[in-house]
Amino acid sequence: MNAPTSTTALRKPLPTAFLTALQAHFGERCSTAAAVREHHGRDESPFPPTPPDAVVFAQSTEDVAALVKLCADWRVPVIAFGVGSSLEGHLLAIAGGVCVDLSQMNKVLAVNPEDLTVTVQAGVTRKQLNDEIKHTGFFFPIDPGADATIGGMVATRASGTNAVRYGTMRENVLALTVVAAEGKVIRTSRRAKKSSAGYDLTRLFVGSEGTLGIVTEITLKVYPQPEAISAATCSFPSVDAAVKTTIATIQLGVPIARCELLDALTVKAVNAHSKLGLPELPLLLFEFHGSPASVREQAETVQQIAREHGGQDFHWATKPEERSRLWTARHNAYFACLQLKPGARSFTTDVCVPISRLAECIGETIEDTAQSFLPAPILGHVGDGNFHCAILANPDDPKEVDEAERLNRRIVARALAMDGTCTGEHGIGLHKMDFLVEEHGTDAVELMARIKRALDPLNILNPGKVVRLQ
Amino acid sequence: MNAPTSTTALRKPLPTAFLTALQAHFGERCSTAAAVREHHGRDESPFPPTPPDAVVFAQSTEDVAALVKLCADWRVPVIAFGVGSSLEGHLLAIAGGVCVDLSQMNKVLAVNPEDLTVTVQAGVTRKQLNDEIKHTGFFFPIDPGADATIGGMVATRASGTNAVRYGTMRENVLALTVVAAEGKVIRTSRRAKKSSAGYDLTRLFVGSEGTLGIVTEITLKVYPQPEAISAATCSFPSVDAAVKTTIATIQLGVPIARCELLDALTVKAVNAHSKLGLPELPLLLFEFHGSPASVREQAETVQQIAREHGGQDFHWATKPEERSRLWTARHNAYFACLQLKPGARSFTTDVCVPISRLAECIGETIEDTAQSFLPAPILGHVGDGNFHCAILANPDDPKEVDEAERLNRRIVARALAMDGTCTGEHGIGLHKMDFLVEEHGTDAVELMARIKRALDPLNILNPGKVVRLQ
Repeated sequence: MNAPTSTTALRKPLPTAFLTALQAHFGERCSTAAAVREHHGRDESPFPPTPPDAVVFAQSTEDVAALVKLCADWRVPVIAFGVGSSLEGHLLAIAGGVCVDLSQMNKVLAVNPEDLTVTVQAGVTRKQLNDEIKHTGFFFPIDPGADATIGGMVATRASGTNAVRYGTMRENVLALTVVAAEGKVIRTSRRAKKSSAGYDLTRLFVGSEGTLGIVTEITLKVYPQPEAISAATCSFPSVDAAVKTTIATIQLGVPIARCELLDALTVKAVNAHSKLGLPELPLLLFEFHGSPASVREQAETVQQIAREHGGQDFHWATKPEERSRLWTARHNAYFACLQLKPGARSFTTDVCVPISRLAECIGETIEDTAQSFLPAPILGHVGDGNFHCAILANPDDPKEVDEAERLNRRIVARALAMDGTCTGEHGIGLHKMDFLVEEHGTDAVELMARIKRALDPLNILNPGKVVRLQ
Repeated sequence: MNAPTSTTALRKPLPTAFLTALQAHFGERCSTAAAVREHHGRDESPFPPTPPDAVVFAQSTEDVAALVKLCADWRVPVIAFGVGSSLEGHLLAIAGGVCVDLSQMNKVLAVNPEDLTVTVQAGVTRKQLNDEIKHTGFFFPIDPGADATIGGMVATRASGTNAVRYGTMRENVLALTVVAAEGKVIRTSRRAKKSSAGYDLTRLFVGSEGTLGIVTEITLKVYPQPEAISAATCSFPSVDAAVKTTIATIQLGVPIARCELLDALTVKAVNAHSKLGLPELPLLLFEFHGSPASVREQAETVQQIAREHGGQDFHWATKPEERSRLWTARHNAYFACLQLKPGARSFTTDVCVPISRLAECIGETIEDTAQSFLPAPILGHVGDGNFHCAILANPDDPKEVDEAERLNRRIVARALAMDGTCTGEHGIGLHKMDFLVEEHGTDAVELMARIKRALDPLNILNPGKVVRLQ
């Protein structure tokens, strides 16, 4: 499988004088070693690596500002990198340039439990953040599965499990420090919970995938750790029954914290990978947060709804270590699925539809993928109307790649026809740029392109991603 | 008091041929009558009316698109109008042009209780919406007090009571239909609950005050009507005690639905206006939503916290008509305060600070305003860290206006020094453009200006508001 040919043509070698200036400024923190470049030119997408020409390890906002200024002076592309867990080719250096690795910017800068906020550098990962604030009694709920950096999660407008109750990065970022295209450092907002002061720059940078500026610091909302937490699994005779249970739960307004679907094939993969011994039937994983009384009340309501749809009795995981085992298995489901077909990569779909259309959307998708010669296990954040189909294909086999893309296109078309989106949480990257136009229409995407041109007139910030410029 | 002189200089008479074309297209729905223009050139701010040259009553998105196209062809300003309840001079036609009145676009277009969404035309008011969806068992919580249009609430990123639990317009708008600068109609998003598909145009238009496009249709989140609702009032020996009760309640994570402060002077005004007979002491108004058990649990927790801070016993309003009387009185507090000083207008501040700084911010504000010769009752959405000081001044008395503005500037400076915002929910309009720069810095405001130029290159959309262009 090749990276998109229309964009690799953009690639020009770095000017020698630029590289000299870069090395003079960053010394050993600038690398052009092949292994380092290779590592920074890939993500979890099925695209092959497309390395940058150099990698700079930033340690401060000032570092990033100096780098962006230098890149602007020489019109060299610059791409921000966290841990490389993105899924749509976001990080591929299709026009060459410099990758700025933010993983050394990993300090929790301020913890303000009295305001329910924390401020972190972009390279802090979500697990690190939760470890560091655990003693305060607060936690940061957004959990995309991968131990992504907070900066990366801002860039893709990530969500994952827990979003059904706590929202996505869209709702949980209060303020950002951003290095804009000319190397100017701005702060998008103060730390007040709400504001009507001008255009919502915060929300504009959340989900902009490094194409409008490089986020270096983030102020986030945090939440009091719930007094009580219970997790339960519930097996169903069909995916349809599981999804209908979910829909009824959401429509009733039960404030569930997590509601995850695994189809029978995913359960099988997870069993093999994590030795869970779950019944190989469609499964919902629930988590309930609240006071002990409220958790009991929620669980009883949902168990009742599940029974009405043919669900079995809940299996409880109330102890932290049991819960942790269960959620680790859920988070490893992606890797577990990869092992269903050795040598395969996953072409992971990410559609999200209004909850009333979810049973129909998943049902038709299962009918469709059942006819394919590729395995396509389904899992997802069904409480939000979001699910993933992990289409397993050998990236070196054009027939398999074509089939994976064909299924992907059909799943996206189906979701769009149901007033849904092509991506609930992974972003556009390289891979969904055509879908973006199908979803929003050319006039809306042209507004996005105007914003890109206005904020990045030299087109050096992760060029060739999200929107096509004329 | 005069409208800002720097901008009235922009005013040019409408070209006759333009007016002819306008009248040919809209017939009787285009008015140049003085009374109609006068009505559309004012809001609830202390600025004197600054009427547009003509008013067009739109009945559809197509009407608005045709108008904007015509205005673009002739480079004539166009200002959207709902009910005129904005507070910062948003609607004043400082550069002349056409006001487009959206009040006839008052249809609820779609109710999707199964998805917890509704789609409305921009001229639907929040009370109308809740009346029309009452039978479905759902409600729309955002409540800025005034019976504003949903379009106006989008434009100012409104919030008000209930935001402490349900969020603001930022969190509750799912998708918008917008007429962009050249008269092109775009839809910013699908109806999925979350999406990572490109730049967040929805959030960019929310809070843009008609300067980037004219919002004609809105898809909103709605919520199941709570099984149980209870409201209570609680009197305190001091504002400080009331605020500290609020802070402790928020920090504990109690999901209160409303938490409103009235200082003793506001209580006095409300008593006189709404005949409530409340003790003339600082007061908190609470509302609790949830299951009967959860409402009981929340109320007990908050009563306990209040007692620890010297609060009196709760007075309950559990019956709908008692609650309605209480909240109507709260919503009329602004008008009640105006009556404290006949002939006065209110210079209403709107700062919002991180909750941990709220007691300090309100405390210093009270010390400050106590030294002034102007009355300045305080009320606010303290659960969000947001409060208003209704500084009462005669707009025709330069000494009073100067004093009101002096107090206003000091309150804003205090909030900014505490990492807060100059406006929690009213917006920038004409009146806070300098504060916007103080709050965000020139580089961030320059990014906003770039966005304005990119999306409205002719500068015809509510020109002269929010950001200054060079």
